[in-house]
Amino acid sequence: MTGGRPPDAGIVTRRLYGDLPLVDADAAAARIADDATVLTSGFGSVGYPKLVPLALADSERDLSLTVVSSGNVGDEIDVALVKSGAIARRFSYQSSAVAREMTNRRDVAFSDRNVSSIGDDVQYGGMVDPDVAVVEAVAVGEDWFVPSTSLGQTPAFVEAADALVVELNRAQPLGLQALHDVYRPEAPPNRTPVPLTDPGERIGDSYVRFDPEKLVAVVETDRSDSTYTFREPTDDDLAIAANLGTFLADEMERSAVFDDDIHLQFGVGSLGNALMGELKDLDFGGRDVVYFGELIQDGLFDMLDAGRLECASATSLALTTEGQERLFADVERYAEDVVLRPADVSNNPGLIDQFGVVGVNSAIEFDIYGNVNSTHVGGGRMINGVGGSADFNRNSLVTVCALPSTLRGGDVSRVVPMAFHVDHTEHDVDVFVTEQGVADVRGRSPVERAELIVENCAHPDFRPALRSYLDDVRERDDHIPHDVRRAAEWFE
Amino acid sequence: MTGGRPPDAGIVTRRLYGDLPLVDADAAAARIADDATVLTSGFGSVGYPKLVPLALADSERDLSLTVVSSGNVGDEIDVALVKSGAIARRFSYQSSAVAREMTNRRDVAFSDRNVSSIGDDVQYGGMVDPDVAVVEAVAVGEDWFVPSTSLGQTPAFVEAADALVVELNRAQPLGLQALHDVYRPEAPPNRTPVPLTDPGERIGDSYVRFDPEKLVAVVETDRSDSTYTFREPTDDDLAIAANLGTFLADEMERSAVFDDDIHLQFGVGSLGNALMGELKDLDFGGRDVVYFGELIQDGLFDMLDAGRLECASATSLALTTEGQERLFADVERYAEDVVLRPADVSNNPGLIDQFGVVGVNSAIEFDIYGNVNSTHVGGGRMINGVGGSADFNRNSLVTVCALPSTLRGGDVSRVVPMAFHVDHTEHDVDVFVTEQGVADVRGRSPVERAELIVENCAHPDFRPALRSYLDDVRERDDHIPHDVRRAAEWFE
Repeated sequence: MTGGRPPDAGIVTRRLYGDLPLVDADAAAARIADDATVLTSGFGSVGYPKLVPLALADSERDLSLTVVSSGNVGDEIDVALVKSGAIARRFSYQSSAVAREMTNRRDVAFSDRNVSSIGDDVQYGGMVDPDVAVVEAVAVGEDWFVPSTSLGQTPAFVEAADALVVELNRAQPLGLQALHDVYRPEAPPNRTPVPLTDPGERIGDSYVRFDPEKLVAVVETDRSDSTYTFREPTDDDLAIAANLGTFLADEMERSAVFDDDIHLQFGVGSLGNALMGELKDLDFGGRDVVYFGELIQDGLFDMLDAGRLECASATSLALTTEGQERLFADVERYAEDVVLRPADVSNNPGLIDQFGVVGVNSAIEFDIYGNVNSTHVGGGRMINGVGGSADFNRNSLVTVCALPSTLRGGDVSRVVPMAFHVDHTEHDVDVFVTEQGVADVRGRSPVERAELIVENCAHPDFRPALRSYLDDVRERDDHIPHDVRRAAEWFE
Repeated sequence: MTGGRPPDAGIVTRRLYGDLPLVDADAAAARIADDATVLTSGFGSVGYPKLVPLALADSERDLSLTVVSSGNVGDEIDVALVKSGAIARRFSYQSSAVAREMTNRRDVAFSDRNVSSIGDDVQYGGMVDPDVAVVEAVAVGEDWFVPSTSLGQTPAFVEAADALVVELNRAQPLGLQALHDVYRPEAPPNRTPVPLTDPGERIGDSYVRFDPEKLVAVVETDRSDSTYTFREPTDDDLAIAANLGTFLADEMERSAVFDDDIHLQFGVGSLGNALMGELKDLDFGGRDVVYFGELIQDGLFDMLDAGRLECASATSLALTTEGQERLFADVERYAEDVVLRPADVSNNPGLIDQFGVVGVNSAIEFDIYGNVNSTHVGGGRMINGVGGSADFNRNSLVTVCALPSTLRGGDVSRVVPMAFHVDHTEHDVDVFVTEQGVADVRGRSPVERAELIVENCAHPDFRPALRSYLDDVRERDDHIPHDVRRAAEWFE
């Protein structure tokens, strides 16, 4: 068997094809230089390499790696490897407590880009000088591999890197191949448009091609993803879902755009998962409901199983362990309605625009004028990263920011006078939803936005203080009146 | 002559075709309800309607209009009409002192969206409920007109409005028809991509079609645009241009993306104009230099006339009076290399990405961590509007923010500890250029960005204070360390 195209008209039936450099993880890790720039697969906490990062973490070497992932990876990287001190520089999303801590102590130099652009940033944009891509696969040949549970920016990373290490994961089913639609946009500056005319269409291959000269190691494993865990929906989650449902019903009534179909996207997390799950009870009036987003979470499988969803397009199967079991048991059937794309397709600004997406994303907090902070607590302490929220908040036809009005058991308001870190500007978000209600700020001036947000979205416990702030600052002749010192007191 | 397609295979030779409702401006103004939502043509201070706004301003009526333009219009709207008190609500960019004053006093409810999205926001997004479009044309028939010196979101506005008033401007040459390429993207949520594969390609018509039922008035005029005036380049402008030239030369050397051609965009204003003009002396090493931007300013004509520019694509001819004379005297020749597009094509996120644009935009200020404020002085006082800067800052392959390090004769630093209004986030801008130097912050962590920005871009008079701020806040265990109260002192 040659290493060329997968056999049997593209159906892969075995794990290994051709003459491959099979080695153990330590030997593969040894191929990575001490100060290498390592690009990894992985997105939504799944589909990332596991053994090679662990081997690097366990080595006695004095490593100073730059590690680039396009999304969230697992504990093998963001706990073990980062804790070992091997990572000097990290892009672009992290989610473990230890990675967060080291980022905030600035022991790791962290930099955060929008998901849609990381592939180009790495390959063309001068962000890093890539050395080696380390990717997880369910099957591999001499110049191709089938990715596992996520795609992310893997195709761009493989193109950009000088060398390639593949982790062949036998715990991930071969059937995942049916989900992938690998299309890497052409090189700028004379790209043609991504030829996707429908969120469910397939325009690429089920595998990633690579220059066979690059393949330096293949490592076998059967280690599972360290998947997400979601909490059960809280009362607030359910109230937010109900308010969102009311808004969506009104919007479908208002706009002829949604007469035939509606294209939805939901952000990551327990709330997003709960919203996805609750929408299965919403009356879409016979419209085709389609998901064009970044992550597929368990809640979406509820909608699929209930026959409420035509199809789902994303870059990652960000499922819980139970969700993975459900998928793996029936992967061919799910593949009829589920497609995984590279992140520069799933999060493509042009496509999000074309498909008139209604994007629903959470955040840490938003201010009375509609600026949204997704990444930094108190202005400065990094939580995870911006991820793809800015791709959808900027380019969706209707942009919804949905979150509980408070955190820490009601002690802290998520509606604040002034956001001291802004990931999404006052020009981006159309609608704010909390468990308290909906503020549709489209066409509203900043002060009108503030009135709507305070009255409709803030928690009653914090409304008087927010009203008092607004009443006082509006004495000023400013378009967006503020009292910065007073606004800062909210964070003390 | 019917009102259908322009005669003679699309070449328009007369101003008026067919049976048109010719009236004077007062009669046209009378067709507009007191509380109407009026969508106007105009972008870059040219191509906007003139007589009807003046007639509205001079009327004794008690008007409470919502006025939507996709870009900068002239004094007839943003001085006369706004001063008359007729405008209750205004979108989305204004530039006169009086409009600014009334916006900051909040006598006018102003709201500011990104140029690329205003057409969709108006037509589909629920931003306003449009009544009438008032547009400037150089020729008009019963169901088409040829726009004048700008396109902006005119095609979307004409589609969205219930009624249409056309100002036929005989002072604008008929030859402008040769510049227009009118393509309105299809309706979401199942748009196909904009089929533009080259910045200079033509994919549309030289005229805008409309439903003939909508045309309620045609008004003739010969009033000129109230064009931009640019100051002569200052020493700082020239130093910024030189630093930008150095960066561009390095970037062309670094990246194979630019081996054959380079696609540039420059923001509006005297600095942008100066940068466009100065680039004619840069050695592009035989590469095709192409402009894919929003505005064509006088400086770009210098490059065209010098044979240094293959073609220029934009949505407005934002020229000075002298620039207009130069264009009007030779419009057919310029039309070989210049094309005007609707703003949802010129500023299309997908196209800016496809064409790998190097976008160069100015701002009011930026902070040490790379957040950029384009719109509000001191956090709250509106200057003009965000315009299309966010379209290019977010979607360009390489994003440059270029501006002098100080203003008010050196008394105020444009590099600040913390921007209290953010239009472009820390995730957006790649490179900062001032007359002091270049900070290429790609792949840098926030604190590394701060070091580069302070040392390379801040003015020497302000460097010690900025260094001191950074030295003190970096004692904190924060990813983006700040002292908000101290940062606020910079604005007192």
